[in-house]
Amino acid sequence: MLEDKILEFFKRYQDKYISGEDLSKTFNISRSAIWKHIEKLREEGYDIIASPHLGYRLLSVPERLTKIELEWQLSTKKIGRTVYSYKELGSTNDTAYNLAMSGEKEGAVVIAEHQTKGRGRLGRKWISPSGKGAYFSIILRPLLLPNQVPVITLLASLAVAKTIREHTGLPAFIKWPNDIVINSRKVCGILTEMNGEMDRINFVILGIGVNINTKKELLPEGATSLAEERGSLINRLEFVRSLFRKLDIYYSDFCNGKIKDILKEYKRYSIILDKHVEVNYHNKTLFGYAIDIDEEGALILRAPSGLNERILAGDVVMLR
Amino acid sequence: MLEDKILEFFKRYQDKYISGEDLSKTFNISRSAIWKHIEKLREEGYDIIASPHLGYRLLSVPERLTKIELEWQLSTKKIGRTVYSYKELGSTNDTAYNLAMSGEKEGAVVIAEHQTKGRGRLGRKWISPSGKGAYFSIILRPLLLPNQVPVITLLASLAVAKTIREHTGLPAFIKWPNDIVINSRKVCGILTEMNGEMDRINFVILGIGVNINTKKELLPEGATSLAEERGSLINRLEFVRSLFRKLDIYYSDFCNGKIKDILKEYKRYSIILDKHVEVNYHNKTLFGYAIDIDEEGALILRAPSGLNERILAGDVVMLR
Repeated sequence: MLEDKILEFFKRYQDKYISGEDLSKTFNISRSAIWKHIEKLREEGYDIIASPHLGYRLLSVPERLTKIELEWQLSTKKIGRTVYSYKELGSTNDTAYNLAMSGEKEGAVVIAEHQTKGRGRLGRKWISPSGKGAYFSIILRPLLLPNQVPVITLLASLAVAKTIREHTGLPAFIKWPNDIVINSRKVCGILTEMNGEMDRINFVILGIGVNINTKKELLPEGATSLAEERGSLINRLEFVRSLFRKLDIYYSDFCNGKIKDILKEYKRYSIILDKHVEVNYHNKTLFGYAIDIDEEGALILRAPSGLNERILAGDVVMLR
Repeated sequence: MLEDKILEFFKRYQDKYISGEDLSKTFNISRSAIWKHIEKLREEGYDIIASPHLGYRLLSVPERLTKIELEWQLSTKKIGRTVYSYKELGSTNDTAYNLAMSGEKEGAVVIAEHQTKGRGRLGRKWISPSGKGAYFSIILRPLLLPNQVPVITLLASLAVAKTIREHTGLPAFIKWPNDIVINSRKVCGILTEMNGEMDRINFVILGIGVNINTKKELLPEGATSLAEERGSLINRLEFVRSLFRKLDIYYSDFCNGKIKDILKEYKRYSIILDKHVEVNYHNKTLFGYAIDIDEEGALILRAPSGLNERILAGDVVMLR
């Protein structure tokens, strides 16, 4: 689209005026056509001033999670090099899954302002109010066996927790395996899906949903948002771009075998280690003392019997 | 299709003559229309005789892997209750995968006389000459975590090895994880694919390819067929129906938690246990003595250092 190209042109010459004539020559359309495109960009929230002698100048960009804003000078190795942005989708994981099946490359991101059928773990719903959160899914193609995939969930949790801490100062913690909590309330969920054979993964879809500026009343019981916790709005665009960069670094570390380093950092933000917990899976409940998380992402629980249990999946409840 | 219904009618009254008038009344079409349908069935290989006074009688059915022949009085619990049969497909695993994504139920089978893009493990090709083998994929929906899926490959190998032994008397063995060999040559390959999240499997596609009556010259180096090994042709239809029944039993055992029993039997037919082997995975090679297969389907190798290695995937080469 021509608006995108004009926008890129503005961004390249940020803080400078560009004359209507220059734009007209560059894009080979009339000056009144240029004016119409500028009007459209303004409608989308771009603040562009026009000065009779100097021309146009881009003052600010809207805080929206669009392909052009997310990709712009992101300088990551893989994550977010290609972004597919939508106003509304059923589920970003489903769209990313279909793209991956058609061969889309590693690092591509599918993001939506609103999901009508957002999914959480185990078929649960993920509430995705419009324009208030970040709901996206990343296609990954790691050279892995299926049993190593859970570590991707761990590194993603770590990236989210650290981005929240650096970006908002809020005390974000990780509740194994993949919830991010602030003051005991959930602010982010992660859904990792995969397609593969026994001997190798074909691809992983890493779905992340963060409640950023969402009002509490729009969220389910026990959930919160970054804005609710901090008491002020967060720039979603900058937050997501920071998160892409963090994910890029940790994923690269992971691919380079630095699992021990990732785990060490993950454990620092874990809210369940060294605590008495209850773990529920299917109709089974286990009690114990959470002593470790191993290199396959499993939780090691010291059972009341004194024996250690290795737990691969479940919902953790903290006990007092 | 009307031919299928006429065929079912014949099968129900096997060994008996059915008059053209009865058929005409049952299906509410003219006797000459019935005759045309009978002709079509004859063209498909059904041996139907006509007697002026007695009517029609089904003498024999063709040895073809069709929905109607495979499903007929199969009496399994799950496997093969629903069959999708094709003359030709790209890959039965791909078709089954798409069916599973659309919600097709557990136990459904996709089978083809010929695959144009048959796949093996790790993206390898699986050669599927027309009308000589059995190439099929089963949709399974076990309540499992991803790390337990490899056992499905093991139980499938066991079902194939036992069906071969019972049906042909040939000394079939299993080469971990999922090759069936006779006299050191491969006669069957299994490709298990899955779709799931960390906490549960959505579905597994169990793909099985058996070289039944295939001539050696049509097969790759190191491969063989049941007919080549036995020196006589095998009834493919009966073989596949027996295999469905075996798979049904072992899969039911597996779902009921009888993993130890399955493993015990699997190990009896393993050709690599108590042998010196080399295992290749990616660019890594391991040597050792194969001592066990554990409950997650991993091979336990005693390395020359004396330490045990747990191997989840790889190609095994037998050493002398």
